[in-house]
Amino acid sequence: MSESPAGALDIARLATTDADFEVRLDDLLAWEGVSDAEVQQRVDEILAAVKQHGDAALVDYSNRLDRLSVESMAELTLGPDRLRQAYDSLPPIQRQALADAAERIRRYHERQKPQSWQYTEEDGTVLGQQVTPLDRAGIYVPGGKAAYPSSVLMNAIPAHVAGVGEIVMVVPTPDGVLNDLVLAAAHLAGVDHVFTIGGAQAVAALAYGTETVPRVDKIVGPGNIYVATAKRAVFGRVGIDMIAGPSEIMVVSDGETDPDWLAMDLFSQAEHDEDAQAILVSWDASHLDAVADSMARQLPTLEREEIVRASLAARGALIQCRDRDEALALINRIAPEHLELSVAEPESWLPEVRHAGAIFMGRHTAEALGDYCAGPNHVLPTSGTARFSSPLGVYDFQKRSSLIHCSAKGASSLGPTASVLARGESLTAHARSAEYRIRD
Amino acid sequence: MSESPAGALDIARLATTDADFEVRLDDLLAWEGVSDAEVQQRVDEILAAVKQHGDAALVDYSNRLDRLSVESMAELTLGPDRLRQAYDSLPPIQRQALADAAERIRRYHERQKPQSWQYTEEDGTVLGQQVTPLDRAGIYVPGGKAAYPSSVLMNAIPAHVAGVGEIVMVVPTPDGVLNDLVLAAAHLAGVDHVFTIGGAQAVAALAYGTETVPRVDKIVGPGNIYVATAKRAVFGRVGIDMIAGPSEIMVVSDGETDPDWLAMDLFSQAEHDEDAQAILVSWDASHLDAVADSMARQLPTLEREEIVRASLAARGALIQCRDRDEALALINRIAPEHLELSVAEPESWLPEVRHAGAIFMGRHTAEALGDYCAGPNHVLPTSGTARFSSPLGVYDFQKRSSLIHCSAKGASSLGPTASVLARGESLTAHARSAEYRIRD
Repeated sequence: MSESPAGALDIARLATTDADFEVRLDDLLAWEGVSDAEVQQRVDEILAAVKQHGDAALVDYSNRLDRLSVESMAELTLGPDRLRQAYDSLPPIQRQALADAAERIRRYHERQKPQSWQYTEEDGTVLGQQVTPLDRAGIYVPGGKAAYPSSVLMNAIPAHVAGVGEIVMVVPTPDGVLNDLVLAAAHLAGVDHVFTIGGAQAVAALAYGTETVPRVDKIVGPGNIYVATAKRAVFGRVGIDMIAGPSEIMVVSDGETDPDWLAMDLFSQAEHDEDAQAILVSWDASHLDAVADSMARQLPTLEREEIVRASLAARGALIQCRDRDEALALINRIAPEHLELSVAEPESWLPEVRHAGAIFMGRHTAEALGDYCAGPNHVLPTSGTARFSSPLGVYDFQKRSSLIHCSAKGASSLGPTASVLARGESLTAHARSAEYRIRD
Repeated sequence: MSESPAGALDIARLATTDADFEVRLDDLLAWEGVSDAEVQQRVDEILAAVKQHGDAALVDYSNRLDRLSVESMAELTLGPDRLRQAYDSLPPIQRQALADAAERIRRYHERQKPQSWQYTEEDGTVLGQQVTPLDRAGIYVPGGKAAYPSSVLMNAIPAHVAGVGEIVMVVPTPDGVLNDLVLAAAHLAGVDHVFTIGGAQAVAALAYGTETVPRVDKIVGPGNIYVATAKRAVFGRVGIDMIAGPSEIMVVSDGETDPDWLAMDLFSQAEHDEDAQAILVSWDASHLDAVADSMARQLPTLEREEIVRASLAARGALIQCRDRDEALALINRIAPEHLELSVAEPESWLPEVRHAGAIFMGRHTAEALGDYCAGPNHVLPTSGTARFSSPLGVYDFQKRSSLIHCSAKGASSLGPTASVLARGESLTAHARSAEYRIRD
């Protein structure tokens, strides 16, 4: 990192024409969430302890790691009444904002519901797919400083819309601190039970079940390295969502958006934590200068100035590209979690955007609107995983069963094909089972 | 296991009324695919070697582990011409069967294609979801005795239907043995390149890329414990499908299906390997007896008799339940990979079947028909994971991007909600970024 005077802006400035552009971009994007052997071993111990000792282990770990002094899981369990009470006790303006956001999120996710389908072939054979919800989902919500009520809405509402039978939430309460906004969000989102436990022990409880905590079918939600390591370990026994990396935004500007707006959009990503990534791309060099000036000017006014400075210095970038095509190539190379297309006709870009978690289109669509209340989910694929994964959605809380109903005629006409292929694989019982259904 | 005379049938016989039924069922279903520390370490070494040395490591491992003597990746690469040649050289009856199966599988999977969608709100704000295919998918195909051309069709066709840009297949050739049926299937399914490599080294090549093997976005397909362990390790860097356990079938019969047919259906599962599981459930005790008699009688005629006997003895079961309701409870408890509803009106059962990978309905729908050519995928969730996962499908080779395009008016009216919630989370740059878009 270059030295920079206090108050000035420390952020990488790149151009696609730089000889070392590719190398510097690779370095900027590099991220590996490593769980070292020590974390792995600690998590293995915790998983084994909870599997074996159930509630007793949960009480023990919570007392030690969250500095509590409880005697039983009853003290770590919150029922629906407590959630409603949290909601009712909120200042009206917060209660209304939370309810409005929940309503919009619910409305958007209703559109994601897939339908079961089937079709009948000429010989009467029916093929199809039946969609069903999970019986039980577990939502992990971080505690302490990163306890975000918006994340409760974003994780639990899709499960509720999917028709999940029971939604269980876990949230640690370090030093016994409960966040009423988080509980209020759980009330709105349709959470059935809350357990105030966290860390790898909470993941273990959801995966194996204990006397008090019901075993779930899938665990979603962000967490620290212990939580991520535990989720990876129980993957297969239960479903999990993606292991999230640090949050990132890539803004592409055509030079016509107010630099102050863009500066604040970049800050809104950088303020998450020191590892967050904010990248601005434009083919207009003077516009990049203007945004840089605005950032330098506005930085001292930020409540989270130190985090933002650290994030921008370590992982931020202002990138000058040649033109629209190069901007698109960068988008598809980076596959950003959040993509702001701050350009004149963003819809004309869509057919060429192959990889992005969420696309914020036009000058007015601040990422922050999508983070809270536009409707789509804010749980998005990070670190380039938008190449192969999707926003959290209703589809994450449902699964499909194939339907095959052969008519007598259909079974008879399919039989010879199955028989030939099965014999080609030396699976003769398969062949004979199909041959039994062939009519003369 | 009880001792049984040669030729007789050794299979567990349970009734839901048994005092120890729950315990015995748990024991039967128990399965843990454990990769011990030694496997883990070996896989870590292989992943690191391929990451560092690329092609050279692939050549080295293939020579050592598959007993080859090649000098470069060129000798481990098969182009489209070689695949077509394999297809052309098949006996006509096999070529036709493979083509018929491919056509039916393609037709079914075309129905799975999701559509992008969007909707416009009153204030002009547009919300939606854009569906795009993966750029590149990797298909792992086991070599040697478990080289199944049908698996090539089932893994690659959904990727092709999804619109994946490039489909890369890897298949080991122990002792240099190539399976022409497998290559022919690759030709039919739209595979672009085949590399004759396998094991953890092939997974590493697909995940990291080498000089010759392109890095893919997702790896699917079954493999041994080294392959499964490697897939779990690279999960997050690339997408993976589920880690598959042994194959299983649960047949529910109302007593009216020919016992010989059912016996062969159970055998067709048991013949896969010693860990495969075949379970028959009925409320008709004499029917269970009749199927058992048929099994004892037909067993000596099976080509894979020894494997079937071992599988049935270790993991098979004939279960007598009280009635239809208990059969349904067992289905939802077991969440079978393959469910045969060999009953009079199977469609009337569907609304109550919550968990199953694929449902084979009616007396004529042998599982084998679905394994090869009915159309739906034969890659299905095993070991109870149908509780939270789905058959392999087109959706596994696509991903979604959220679309948010706020009108000026929409951004202005959403701004206050986002601002209140962001300030409630102490994320003030988020709040200010939204506030910039609020008009007076």
